[in-house]
Parts: sequence; structure tokens; C-alpha cells
Amino acid sequence: MLSVDALHAGRVDREILEDLRSGELTAVTVTVGFWEDATETMDRIGRWRDTVRDNADLVQLAEGPADIRSARDEGRTAIVLGLQNTAALIDRIRFVELFALMGIRVMQLTYNNQNAIGGSCYEASDSGLSRFGRQVVREMNRVGILIDLSHVGENTGRDAIEASETPVAVTHANPSFLCAHKRNKSQALLEALADRGGVLGLSTFPNFSVGWCETPARWAELVERTIEVIGVEHVGIGTDLVPKIDETEYDWMRRGRWTREADYGSGKPGGPVAVGWPDWCDSSAKFQAFAAALSDRGFAPADIEAVMGGNFLRLYEETMAPMGALV
Amino acid sequence: MLSVDALHAGRVDREILEDLRSGELTAVTVTVGFWEDATETMDRIGRWRDTVRDNADLVQLAEGPADIRSARDEGRTAIVLGLQNTAALIDRIRFVELFALMGIRVMQLTYNNQNAIGGSCYEASDSGLSRFGRQVVREMNRVGILIDLSHVGENTGRDAIEASETPVAVTHANPSFLCAHKRNKSQALLEALADRGGVLGLSTFPNFSVGWCETPARWAELVERTIEVIGVEHVGIGTDLVPKIDETEYDWMRRGRWTREADYGSGKPGGPVAVGWPDWCDSSAKFQAFAAALSDRGFAPADIEAVMGGNFLRLYEETMAPMGALV
Repeated sequence: MLSVDALHAGRVDREILEDLRSGELTAVTVTVGFWEDATETMDRIGRWRDTVRDNADLVQLAEGPADIRSARDEGRTAIVLGLQNTAALIDRIRFVELFALMGIRVMQLTYNNQNAIGGSCYEASDSGLSRFGRQVVREMNRVGILIDLSHVGENTGRDAIEASETPVAVTHANPSFLCAHKRNKSQALLEALADRGGVLGLSTFPNFSVGWCETPARWAELVERTIEVIGVEHVGIGTDLVPKIDETEYDWMRRGRWTREADYGSGKPGGPVAVGWPDWCDSSAKFQAFAAALSDRGFAPADIEAVMGGNFLRLYEETMAPMGALV
Repeated sequence: MLSVDALHAGRVDREILEDLRSGELTAVTVTVGFWEDATETMDRIGRWRDTVRDNADLVQLAEGPADIRSARDEGRTAIVLGLQNTAALIDRIRFVELFALMGIRVMQLTYNNQNAIGGSCYEASDSGLSRFGRQVVREMNRVGILIDLSHVGENTGRDAIEASETPVAVTHANPSFLCAHKRNKSQALLEALADRGGVLGLSTFPNFSVGWCETPARWAELVERTIEVIGVEHVGIGTDLVPKIDETEYDWMRRGRWTREADYGSGKPGGPVAVGWPDWCDSSAKFQAFAAALSDRGFAPADIEAVMGGNFLRLYEETMAPMGALV
């Protein structure tokens, strides 16, 4: 079964990589960074490349879709390097290409805050895609970096869908018409995404799945109701799993260096950073539980594979250039 | 005729790229930077990649030796991206690989000053290769970056020749036993270089060619006498041409940000930054004058081609991995 987790945000060591294999994952897009500038991001990319090399019996770096297929044939999981922000560009258009050369294949336009490219889902007012943002979208298209809109604001997301020549992704969010939360996406945005061939990765992150992931049966209903609106070709999975993330790292994710005050991300004042994950899907090792849930609800095998990974693999194929195409 | 200029240090615009074609150059290693840190070097790499793309009728980026051969077949000049320093690494071992991924294929261990890797030819005392330096040499071997010792001190150069698993280069210097100057290389160092399969690029830079380049006949004698010591397989050309470099750029090359005082590089106090180049070899467009000079002195055609470019192409083939080998 083709199985793709379009967004993993946890720490990754050998134990977690073994979980990816236990979960029979074909490919996983990992989070290389959030607020890091160019140099800091390069430190993280360097460590990721080491980690992948040091665990070559389990994983392989995905420079392009061909690597995902070859990893599958060899019983390894393809690791797609992604950034949850564009901070690494430090406002330089040419750095899009350079980070692609270093291996970045997915980039979210904004994380939780407005940046030079556009607005986030948590800003009171979203500018839409900026002048620089339009340049970056075009450049990401050119060099084969998948555009991710998960934490991006509604206006910027809509603009990016329109501006991009290739389909884009919401790798880890849910429909806001089912799960009311700022991090989730409106029906209008998801329909526009699907119209242009994009894919939504449904997320089991408790804060913004709002009860829909408590049981396999409820989650399968979430999938079904999402498919009713945007079609089975446009729904996938992006867990947003965060194994082994400690308070220091949560603090970095939420507050970076942008505030001295408290910030709760998708959580609430006074609440824990993340409500506990339901047992049935709290690890990459349990990824096939999603397939079982869909099967129990009576999904056809072809539709199960589309949701489990086929749709994201198709999107990766349509957007990611092999590095050789960059010169 | 295979023709390689192993070191060009000038500004490069379309006019200069046209000179490369007029000079029938198969490949040229250009100078992307001197003192720039990682981010500044990336700005320069980004611009170089644009320049090469924007002039694709004349030049092609060389990711590896195969690109040099294909460029030759297509009547274009292969551009090899080189750094005259390791400042871009900002002391990070993993950045060697990342800069290789961005296209850097030649790196000089030090420019005019001692750094974390070793000593330069202008330091009063040369430490030899440092602990970090040994790591960098090994990493450059692994990722396929040619090690350049041109401005490097005697001890560090000797250590690097011994430490490197693949042959190394002195891309632009002359033998000090013929041209007495701190920038030039001792017989012992050049013999060690040649013993391990390395190549010396003789430079026509007036300050340290010390009269040997004033006429084609004298230059051919320089080649002949160098070959007598290290063998015809180990001698090539690295002009160190600096077209269109203005005073601001010379100042950057010499003083960077490391001193508030005057510094003369290979020049002398009170003298010009560089004594004028002899007319016969003052432009890449005249590169074939070197072949004519060797022919006039009676060199065999095979030896002329070895010096003109065959030796450096062989060295490039022995040291530069295609990017695909890095994952």
C-alpha cells in the first residue's frame, strides 16, 4: 500500500525511523525547520543528510519522485525534506534554488506569523501574497519545491493557489466546516485547492482535529465528509505527529524569537501544548490503522490507496523536479 | 584543443564570456568569492547560476567532468564554480557538502590569511593543517571538491597533499625556484604535489611571474623548466586573470574585513595593485597564444594539449563527483 505522511514535525532518531518502517510508510515529509535563518537551516539540513546516510538501511533521501519509487522497491522509507516556513530565504529570491539544491522539496509560505511573503492563519488581517511572495511562488514552481499552505492565511492561500503554475498542498490541516479552528481551511479555499489539482493532508493533531480523530470510525467519517466536498483525488494524510518534542522545542516552535510573551500556537491559554493523541494513531508505527479505518467504513481499495499515499505521490510527481533540472 | 584555465579571478559579464569562447576555452574555474561568509557566498553563487543560465548559448555550469565534455561537444565553455577561501564554511564541516550541492567544485584552503584550516603563504609561521582542516580535506574528498593550495602556506600545503586521498591542485602559482615570491611554490612542495598526481597551474599574474611571462618565448621556457622538475603530466595553466576588477574589488580581495591598514597582496607598498599584463596573454580571448608559444618552442602536440587543458581535465575527472554521488 502506497503510504505517505505529508507532514511529520517531530524529532527523528533511529527509533522514530524504525517506526516509519513499522508503519510501512513509503514516504514522509519531515520538518527541517520553523524560524531558522539561512545558516541555521543549513545546520539542520546538514544533520538531516547525516541522519539519512547513517540509517541507509531504513531510509533514503528523496530528491525527486523517482527516489520515492526506488525506496519503496527497496523496502526503505523516502525522506522528503521540508520547511514549515520561508525564514531560510532571508528575503532572497535566489535562495529558493539554493535550498532546492540542498534537498528542500516542500516549503510552507508562512508559519504562524506574517512574513515577507504573506499572512498567516493567526494574523488579524491577511495581506494576501506580497510582491516578493509572487516571485517566490514562481521560483518554487521553477525549481520543484511543493508549496504548502497549512499555516498560511486565507487570502495568501487563495492567492498562492491562483499564482502557482503547479498544484499546491495543504499538508496538515482539516476542513474548518467540520473542525472549527483558525488552523483549518475554509470550504472555498479547499475547493480552489482541489480545482487546481492540489491535495489536503488531514491532520490528527488533537488541537485542531477537534474530536474527529478520537476513534478510527470518527476519523473515517471525517475523511468521507471531506471527500464529499473536494473529491477523493484531493484528500491525503499529514499527521503532524511530534514525537519526542520537549518543552524547549515547543517553545521554539511557538515563540521563536519573535515575542517575549506567551504564545500557544494551536493550543489555548492555560491548556497543555497539545492534548494527548488518541492511542490508535499516536505513532508513525500505527500508520496502517488509517487504512484499516477506511476499510472498515467500506472504502474501495483504490480510494484507500489514494488517501493513504497515492494522491500525495501524484502531487509530488507533478511538482518536484529532480535536481538535474535546475542547472 | 582541450583548453582549461584553472583560475580566473575577474568579474564576468557577457563580454568576458565571449572572450572565453574566442579563446576556445573548454573549461574555466571562476572565483565565486574570497572573504564572504556562508550567506554572502550564497548570494554570489545565486548570481553566478543566473549568469550561466542567462548566457546558455556561450557557457554551461560544470557539475562534473561529464558536463565539461558535453559543453565542449556543444561549442560552449564549462564554468566550474570555485572559492579562493573556506570562509563560506563558517567553521561547519557539513557546509562542505552543502556548498558542493550548490555547485562549488574547487575550494582553496586559505586565501591570504591563516584561518581555521591552516596557514597562508603570507603568514610568518604556518601551523600546518589544523584538526578542522583535516576534517575538511576528508570531506572535500568525499563530496568531490578539488583542493586548491595556491595561496596556502608551505606546511599546510604539504600536509594537505599528504592528507588528501585524491590528487590536489595549485591552480595559480609558479615555482619559487624560478620566480622568487612568497606566492610561489617550493620544489619540495611541487614534487610532493606531482608524486600524488596533482597539477600546478602556471600563472601569468605579473606580480609573481616575475618577468617570465613578458614574451611567449620566455613563458614557454618557464613551462619547459617546470616540466623538467615535475613532469609534463603535472603542469597546466591558471592565469589568475582579473578583467574589469576595479579598486573597490581589489581592496576587498586584499583587505576584506580583516584589517584597517594597507595590504598589498602579491604587490608591493607604493606599487600598483598589479603591474600590467603583457599584451600577448592579457585576455581569455588570447588563450590559444599559450599553445602557439609551446609549439614555437618545439613541444610535441600531445604535450601541448596536456599543458593547455588535458592535465586539469584529468584532475577534475579524478576529484569531482557528480552531485548524484552525494546523497
